[in-house]
Amino acid sequence: MIKHALPVTREADFAAWYQSVITEADLAEESGVRGCMVIRPWGYGIWERIQRLLDDRIKATGHENCYFPLFIPLSYFEKEAEHVEGFAKEMAVVTHHRLVSDGKGGLTPDPEAKLEEPLVVRPTSETVIGAAFARWVQSWRDLPVLINQWANVVRWEMRTRMFLRTSEFLWQEGHTAHASADEAREETLKMLAVYRDFSEDCLGVHVIPGEKPENERFPGAVETWSIEAMMQDGKALQAGTSHFLGTNFASAQNIRFQNAEGQLELANTTSWGVSTRMIGGVIMVHGDDDGLRCPPKIAPWQIVIVPMLRDKPEDEAIVSYCKALQAKLATGSALGEPIRALLDLKPVKSTNKRWGWVKKGAPVVVEVGGRDVEGGNVSVIRRDDLYREDGKLNSAVMPRDAFLEEAGGLLEAIQEALHQQSIDRLKAQIEPVNDWSAIETKFADGVKNPGWADVAWSKPSGAALNGVVERLKALKLTIRNAPQGQSGHPGAPCIFTGAPAVERVLIGRSY
Amino acid sequence: MIKHALPVTREADFAAWYQSVITEADLAEESGVRGCMVIRPWGYGIWERIQRLLDDRIKATGHENCYFPLFIPLSYFEKEAEHVEGFAKEMAVVTHHRLVSDGKGGLTPDPEAKLEEPLVVRPTSETVIGAAFARWVQSWRDLPVLINQWANVVRWEMRTRMFLRTSEFLWQEGHTAHASADEAREETLKMLAVYRDFSEDCLGVHVIPGEKPENERFPGAVETWSIEAMMQDGKALQAGTSHFLGTNFASAQNIRFQNAEGQLELANTTSWGVSTRMIGGVIMVHGDDDGLRCPPKIAPWQIVIVPMLRDKPEDEAIVSYCKALQAKLATGSALGEPIRALLDLKPVKSTNKRWGWVKKGAPVVVEVGGRDVEGGNVSVIRRDDLYREDGKLNSAVMPRDAFLEEAGGLLEAIQEALHQQSIDRLKAQIEPVNDWSAIETKFADGVKNPGWADVAWSKPSGAALNGVVERLKALKLTIRNAPQGQSGHPGAPCIFTGAPAVERVLIGRSY
Repeated sequence: MIKHALPVTREADFAAWYQSVITEADLAEESGVRGCMVIRPWGYGIWERIQRLLDDRIKATGHENCYFPLFIPLSYFEKEAEHVEGFAKEMAVVTHHRLVSDGKGGLTPDPEAKLEEPLVVRPTSETVIGAAFARWVQSWRDLPVLINQWANVVRWEMRTRMFLRTSEFLWQEGHTAHASADEAREETLKMLAVYRDFSEDCLGVHVIPGEKPENERFPGAVETWSIEAMMQDGKALQAGTSHFLGTNFASAQNIRFQNAEGQLELANTTSWGVSTRMIGGVIMVHGDDDGLRCPPKIAPWQIVIVPMLRDKPEDEAIVSYCKALQAKLATGSALGEPIRALLDLKPVKSTNKRWGWVKKGAPVVVEVGGRDVEGGNVSVIRRDDLYREDGKLNSAVMPRDAFLEEAGGLLEAIQEALHQQSIDRLKAQIEPVNDWSAIETKFADGVKNPGWADVAWSKPSGAALNGVVERLKALKLTIRNAPQGQSGHPGAPCIFTGAPAVERVLIGRSY
Repeated sequence: MIKHALPVTREADFAAWYQSVITEADLAEESGVRGCMVIRPWGYGIWERIQRLLDDRIKATGHENCYFPLFIPLSYFEKEAEHVEGFAKEMAVVTHHRLVSDGKGGLTPDPEAKLEEPLVVRPTSETVIGAAFARWVQSWRDLPVLINQWANVVRWEMRTRMFLRTSEFLWQEGHTAHASADEAREETLKMLAVYRDFSEDCLGVHVIPGEKPENERFPGAVETWSIEAMMQDGKALQAGTSHFLGTNFASAQNIRFQNAEGQLELANTTSWGVSTRMIGGVIMVHGDDDGLRCPPKIAPWQIVIVPMLRDKPEDEAIVSYCKALQAKLATGSALGEPIRALLDLKPVKSTNKRWGWVKKGAPVVVEVGGRDVEGGNVSVIRRDDLYREDGKLNSAVMPRDAFLEEAGGLLEAIQEALHQQSIDRLKAQIEPVNDWSAIETKFADGVKNPGWADVAWSKPSGAALNGVVERLKALKLTIRNAPQGQSGHPGAPCIFTGAPAVERVLIGRSY
């Protein structure tokens, strides 16, 4: 039996395993500040790669980055009623702008410095960006406005889980204004497609794009679309959302323009975002019992060279061999970019280094010992293929030059393999179900990894929808989305009501 | 007389001119939220360039990026007494985590959701990062810890000025811990040198690196070093600071390590930062009466192609000629990176486009009309050399291929020319002064652009220093820094006390 690097396996306790990946891979840690985490260098390095690759795509689709205030006056929130309703319960509120001595050696908010109007720490920026749009947009010539922001946001959370649900998190939020509803809807779906492509191509996380049901819409949205990813425990992760806001926010914030005919119209707006939560998804899609397996496109270091030093005279030759190897690798390219190769010279035992990088999920670890130097070889560990059939570490000795030649292709193969596993898992874990009793069996207490059910429904609204939501809630289920691009008849009556169905939706448990 | 593009000149009203550059170049605007600005795409694009170039240098010197919480519990601040004293007066304080209806259609902080311990919105992160260092550092093997963070910070300001002093701003803050005071001091000066190099090489802003006097030290620091830049009105801008914190923060936060001999020691720490304020410096160093002149290294677009369209059939040929030009330019390189060339196809009159890009400070504007297409030419405007001797716009017609060949070199020449002007101005505006009455004359009311004085002083401390500070304050002056690398005798007695001098310092007005 293989002795894995993590103290707990996915099989034994998925939640504890998730936490142990985060700790053992040095991704993040508790900060001591309630609900907030410290994102450590390896975790933040992954976020920087995500930012770089997604930002390129956001700019390539014509959006420009801006920065809007962290603080939003309370009155801004009062304008859009549904939006308030959806967010008002979980916001951090700044009420004072100065501290004074409390006379007991401590500090206290200065009663003299109470703000006339409290400020909310942004939970999302529709209101403050909408106010800017109202200033910027006068005529149809000013449209579309295509803006994005990379920022921190705060939503007070009682129960937090690192990367998945923290009071403060990092994200990008796109906000756009358009002359017509059609154009805004097209933008909504265009960015959904960008998210899907980014998730699959860069994160290797296969997803289902689709529309959220009415009860899961963003507060104030006309339509909310999502990409839903399948975790290894069969739960769903909403990995990105794109909202068509119609004229709801434009009306609340007076974003009007003179059309070509000289008449005043309301703009149609959209918003869309992904966050550090994506990193949680990457862990739960690609992690294994030895830690994270980081897709090469988002790995801060793709190839890590570990010299096997033994405090002996030959160490010097090993280090210079490794330096030459690193320099050569850095001139190569993989996945359209220069290869990111690190030589790990920290004063740590080399087996500890090896396992440290395995847990972090560096796609390739190259070990170099005295014998490798003599033979002109390297010992290569491929993180996604860690063990041989006999359970031994799969470390392949190969000529240095052959490795240099293959390095780029190897990284591409790893990226592809991780994605393929995610595709296979997504497919294997979705089951068409056509009657409610089968749902109750599938999702009964104690059934491990039930995945998602793919069901037909009549798309009820209002109170009828609430009834459906309650029935699902009793099984801890939610409707994830109605997959995009459905054609033809849903193939069965509504699983909830028996009425004629209009589309199929995915239901499952979720993070 | 030249009719310039801005409504106000530097000569007429420098402060109004500064504001008009920000408005006319679309750099930023008032947000409607007190003390906070909206950074618009061109301003944020400059910040992204600054981030990219500085981040490369921060990483090249061995630092890794992390992310730490926005909120800092009050108790963290109470630990370092001087630090509290320095910051406690101007912080945004979160006291509630929920809003409820106020019964009048509005919202109010929920009295049931009052935080037990108020949270401060970070004004700087020494305390919260120090707490992490205390967890991370056990042994000498864990040192040095070399960390950086790109983040927003908040310091409540009563009088704000865009980029220079806003309640919220963006910055990077480096934080490091070391085994010895010498090593920490070396780090402090290393990062000061990185800032200097970055400012001069990328921003074209020449600076004087040096140590701040005791009264200007960062709260809790043992030494504070700065780079000081010369604005066109003769005022100083502190453009970056680097602090040697000794064991002050380590002691308050218990950052201890076991040394090689097995004894417990306090770590020595440093911190260093630059912010969006640098953009204010770029404006006041390189701006002219036609707007910003953006150094090519930090220009979001270095070359902007403006097709001179006239709603005529030949427009099509012009656009395709421009597209080919843009594609060719994008394959070229300048200043070590691919050239960033934009083709401006917005539905705006071409002369408005030209002046829009002049005001934004795009280093090169290329206009292409029907006659240029016929002749295989382009009309090139170099932003740093905008007018001919006769006051006419300096637009040079040249063969397209010659321009393509020269484009990279042209951008490099502009970068160099802007830097050289900054060097010349810095030198011209610093004057050695050896007696106090000359200071009173130089800085008398109504003297325009007095620049800085370079004086000898005895480096008084405590109450004696306070006396000096008060005398300077009466003339609205401060000591900027004691320039680094002084050698030999300061050359005169202390200008303030007549006592023997120990070094020379720069004094001037500042932003």
